[in-house]
Amino acid sequence: MNAPHHNQSQRKPLPEAMVAALRAQFGDRFSLAQAVREHHGKDESPYPNMLPDAVVFAQSTDEVLVVVRLCNAYGVPLIPFGAGSSLEGHVLALEGGITLDLSGMNEIVSFNPEDLLVSVQPGITRKQLNEHLRDSGLFFPIDPGADASLGGMASTRASGTNAVKYGTMRENVVSLTVVTAQGKVVRTSSLARKSSAGYDLTRLFVGSEGTLGIITEVTVRLYPQPEAVSAAVCNFPTVNDAVQCVIQTIQLGVPVARVELMDRAAVVASNRYSKLTLKETPLLLFEFHGSAAGVQEQAQTVQEIASHHGGMDFAWAERPEDRNRLWTARHNAYFAGLQLRPGCKASTTDVCVPISRLADCINATTEDLAKASFPTTIVGHVGDGNFHVLMMLDPDSQAEWEESEEVNRRMVRRAIDAGGTCTGEHGVGMHKMQYLVEEHGEDALDLMRALKRAFDPNNILNPGKVISLDAHLG
Amino acid sequence: MNAPHHNQSQRKPLPEAMVAALRAQFGDRFSLAQAVREHHGKDESPYPNMLPDAVVFAQSTDEVLVVVRLCNAYGVPLIPFGAGSSLEGHVLALEGGITLDLSGMNEIVSFNPEDLLVSVQPGITRKQLNEHLRDSGLFFPIDPGADASLGGMASTRASGTNAVKYGTMRENVVSLTVVTAQGKVVRTSSLARKSSAGYDLTRLFVGSEGTLGIITEVTVRLYPQPEAVSAAVCNFPTVNDAVQCVIQTIQLGVPVARVELMDRAAVVASNRYSKLTLKETPLLLFEFHGSAAGVQEQAQTVQEIASHHGGMDFAWAERPEDRNRLWTARHNAYFAGLQLRPGCKASTTDVCVPISRLADCINATTEDLAKASFPTTIVGHVGDGNFHVLMMLDPDSQAEWEESEEVNRRMVRRAIDAGGTCTGEHGVGMHKMQYLVEEHGEDALDLMRALKRAFDPNNILNPGKVISLDAHLG
Repeated sequence: MNAPHHNQSQRKPLPEAMVAALRAQFGDRFSLAQAVREHHGKDESPYPNMLPDAVVFAQSTDEVLVVVRLCNAYGVPLIPFGAGSSLEGHVLALEGGITLDLSGMNEIVSFNPEDLLVSVQPGITRKQLNEHLRDSGLFFPIDPGADASLGGMASTRASGTNAVKYGTMRENVVSLTVVTAQGKVVRTSSLARKSSAGYDLTRLFVGSEGTLGIITEVTVRLYPQPEAVSAAVCNFPTVNDAVQCVIQTIQLGVPVARVELMDRAAVVASNRYSKLTLKETPLLLFEFHGSAAGVQEQAQTVQEIASHHGGMDFAWAERPEDRNRLWTARHNAYFAGLQLRPGCKASTTDVCVPISRLADCINATTEDLAKASFPTTIVGHVGDGNFHVLMMLDPDSQAEWEESEEVNRRMVRRAIDAGGTCTGEHGVGMHKMQYLVEEHGEDALDLMRALKRAFDPNNILNPGKVISLDAHLG
Repeated sequence: MNAPHHNQSQRKPLPEAMVAALRAQFGDRFSLAQAVREHHGKDESPYPNMLPDAVVFAQSTDEVLVVVRLCNAYGVPLIPFGAGSSLEGHVLALEGGITLDLSGMNEIVSFNPEDLLVSVQPGITRKQLNEHLRDSGLFFPIDPGADASLGGMASTRASGTNAVKYGTMRENVVSLTVVTAQGKVVRTSSLARKSSAGYDLTRLFVGSEGTLGIITEVTVRLYPQPEAVSAAVCNFPTVNDAVQCVIQTIQLGVPVARVELMDRAAVVASNRYSKLTLKETPLLLFEFHGSAAGVQEQAQTVQEIASHHGGMDFAWAERPEDRNRLWTARHNAYFAGLQLRPGCKASTTDVCVPISRLADCINATTEDLAKASFPTTIVGHVGDGNFHVLMMLDPDSQAEWEESEEVNRRMVRRAIDAGGTCTGEHGVGMHKMQYLVEEHGEDALDLMRALKRAFDPNNILNPGKVISLDAHLG
C-alpha cells in the first residue's frame, strides 16, 4: 500500500540545538527511541507507518508553547497526537518532525453543571469524560467508534451515533484554547451559548486537523441524562427497506436519538465478535431519549413507519445492561469486521449525503460491493445520511488495495454527485485530500490555502494534511 | 452623537471609469441620486447617516461579481445591503464607496422539502420565506425582531426568540454561495447534514458582516411545523424571580421552544403600542412545540418551576390568532419602546451570558437603569442568556448619548466578566468594535485580522466594521 507524497527518506535530521533545547526542557518526556516513534507513527488508517523524528509528551499549554515556538523557529513539522485512533492518516509523520503527545493532558479543567459545560484538557477521552460525569446527571453525547480524545474529536469534527439528536463536535464545542503556529495562546470564544462577536474562530479550528493550531483546552456542552431511554432492534428484508424507514422518520421530524444501520454482513460479524444472537438480516438499531411518555410516543411512531417498510418486530432492550451490550457491539463493529478475515488490514470509507439520496447511494454501493474480491460490511449513522463501508484487505496485496481505492472513489463520487460530502466524520487526513477539489472546487480550496498560510506561514503544523499548499494538486 | 473614525469628508470621489462601467452595466439600477444614497446610508443604529457615493441594485451572482471586481480593481469600498435593519452601524458607508443593494435578489432558488432544506437569494426576508413555506408543513424558525433579509441574518449570525430550541444562523445555515473580494464564486459546503471535509468556510462567513465576502445564496435548514403549539404568559413579582424560573427550566433540559423576558416597562410599552391588556409586572412569554402530549408535559413542568419562583397563573394563548398577537407584540417591543418617548432615537444593547450568571447580570443592569435619565426597557431571549436594553434618547442631547454609552459599557463589562459576550445576536458593526479586545484578547484579534487580510487583501469589503486592521485599536 503506497501513500502519496511519501518522501520520508529525503527529510533533514532535527537541528541539534533544537534537540538540546527539548531535552533540557522535557527530560525523559522527550524521546528519540524507535519504539516510541513507531507507536506515534501509525494510526487506524490503511497507510504504512510514518515515524516522527522525536516525540514530546506535553503536560500543559505552556509546554505546548515551548514546542511550537521551537518548531516554528527551526521550521520543523509538528504533529499533535491524542489517542491515535484517526482513520485517514491524520497523525502520520509524512515529513518527519516532532509528534506532540497530548494524552497526558487528560484532566478536567473546570466543570460547570449549572451551565451544562465542562472544560477539559485535549488528551481526555470520551469515555474518561463520561466516567467523570457519571454521578452528575449529565453526559457528553458525541461518540465516535473509538475511545478518541476530545482534542482529536474537535480536530476531526467527529460525531458518532448520537449526532442525529445532539449534533457533532461542530455544534458542541463551545470554546477552545489554541496555541497558534506563531506561539500565541488564544481563547476562541466566550462561554455564552450564542455570540455575534466577530469571526467564528471556534468553528474554524474545529475540523482543522491540527493544521491551524494546537488545541490545549476544549469546552463542550453537556446534556441532562434523559429521564427515559429505550432502545430497540428492528430487522428488515433489505437494506433499502431499512433506509426508507429512516428517511421517513427524519422527514417527519421524530426526535430519535440514535438510528444506526447494519447490513447483513455487519450483523453476522457482530454476532460472532460480540456474542450476540441478532437475526441475520439488515437491521436498524434505534434509541429514544426523553420523558417516559415522550419515549413511548416516539417508539410508537417509528414502529408504525417501520411496519410500512417491511420492518419486523421491534426487539426492545429496556435494561441498561442490555442497551450497553447492543451499543458496545455497534461501537465494536470495526473490530468485528476485522475478525471476518483474521490478519487483514481495514480500509474504512465515510460519506454523507442528503437524506433523500441516502437509499440511492447505499443501494448503488451495495451493488458495487457485491463484486468486491474481499469481505466488506456496511454500517451507518443513517439518521444523518452518513454511512461507512469497512473493507477487509490482505495487507500484502497491492491489487486489493487498488481495488478498495476504486470502491472508495466510486462511493465518494456518488456522494458528491448527490450533493453530499467525501467525509461525514472521519476527516480528510491524507486519504481524502484528493477529493476536496471535486467537492469544493478550486476557488474554495484557494480560500482554505489562504487561511492555512495566514495562520501557519511556515507550514509547520501537521504539514501535508487536509490541503496541499500547491494549487491544482488538491 | 458622534461615530468613531468618521471621516466621510476626506474621501475620494469614485473613479470616472468605474462610474462609466457601472452605468453601462446596470443602467438605472446604478444610482448617484441623493435620496437613494440617503436611504442606503442609514440603519437602525443610533449613528448619524453615512452615505455611499453610489448604489447598485444587483439581480444575480454574476452582477455581484461585476461590482466586486470593479471595486477591487479601483480600491473602492463595497457594502452589501439587505433590509437595512441592522442595529450597530453595519451598513453605514463609513468610508463612502458603493452600496450593493441585494433586496431585489429575493427568490427561492430551490426548495427541497425531503431534505428539509431551502436555498434562497440573500435579499429574501424571513417573513417572505415563511410565506412561501406556509402550505408545505415546514417553517424557518430564526426570527430577529425586524423582518431582516436572510443574507443579512447570515452575515450577523442572527437569532431571535426560537434560538433556545432551534439554534441560531450558526446552526441553521447549511451552505452559502459567496463572491470573494478577489472575484471568485465559492460554494462553502455540500448539502450533507454533517461533514469533516476541510475548513468550515460556512461558519467563517456566517457572522462576518460582509467583511470577508458577499453572500449571494443561502441554504438553510427547515423544520416540520410542530404538531402542537402552545403559548402562555406568566407574570412574576420581580425580574429576578422570572430569571430564576428560566435558569431552572434550562438546567432541567426542558425543550421549551421560546422563553422571553419583558420587564415592567416593556410590558407597559407593549400594552400601549400593541393594544394588549397584559398585567403590568415583569413577565415571561413561553412557547412549547411538540406532540400534543409532549407540549402538555413541558407546560406542566414549567408551571411547577414557575410556581416555585412566585410565578402567577399561566395565561394560555391556544388559538393561533392569540399566539400571533402575543408574538407580534414581542417583536414590536422595539417600536413600542420608541413610543414611550415620541421623537426619540433608540440605542439597543445586546449581551449574552452563561445562564448561571443571567440573574446577576440582569439584576445589576436593572439597578443601573434605575439611575438613567431616559426611559428604558429590558427584553430578552433569556433561554439563551441573551438580553437587550432599549434606551430612548433625545436625539439632540450629547449628554444622553454619552450616558447611554456608559450604560452600554458597564453592561458589556459585566457580561464579559461573567464569561459572556458583548453581542449575542446583533453583531459588531461599528458600535461593538471597541469591546472585541476585552472579549477575545489581542492575540485572537490578530488571527481575525490575518483572516481579513487573507480574504480581502485590498480591504474593500465593508471596511471599518468588525475589526480594525490596525493592531491595538480593536
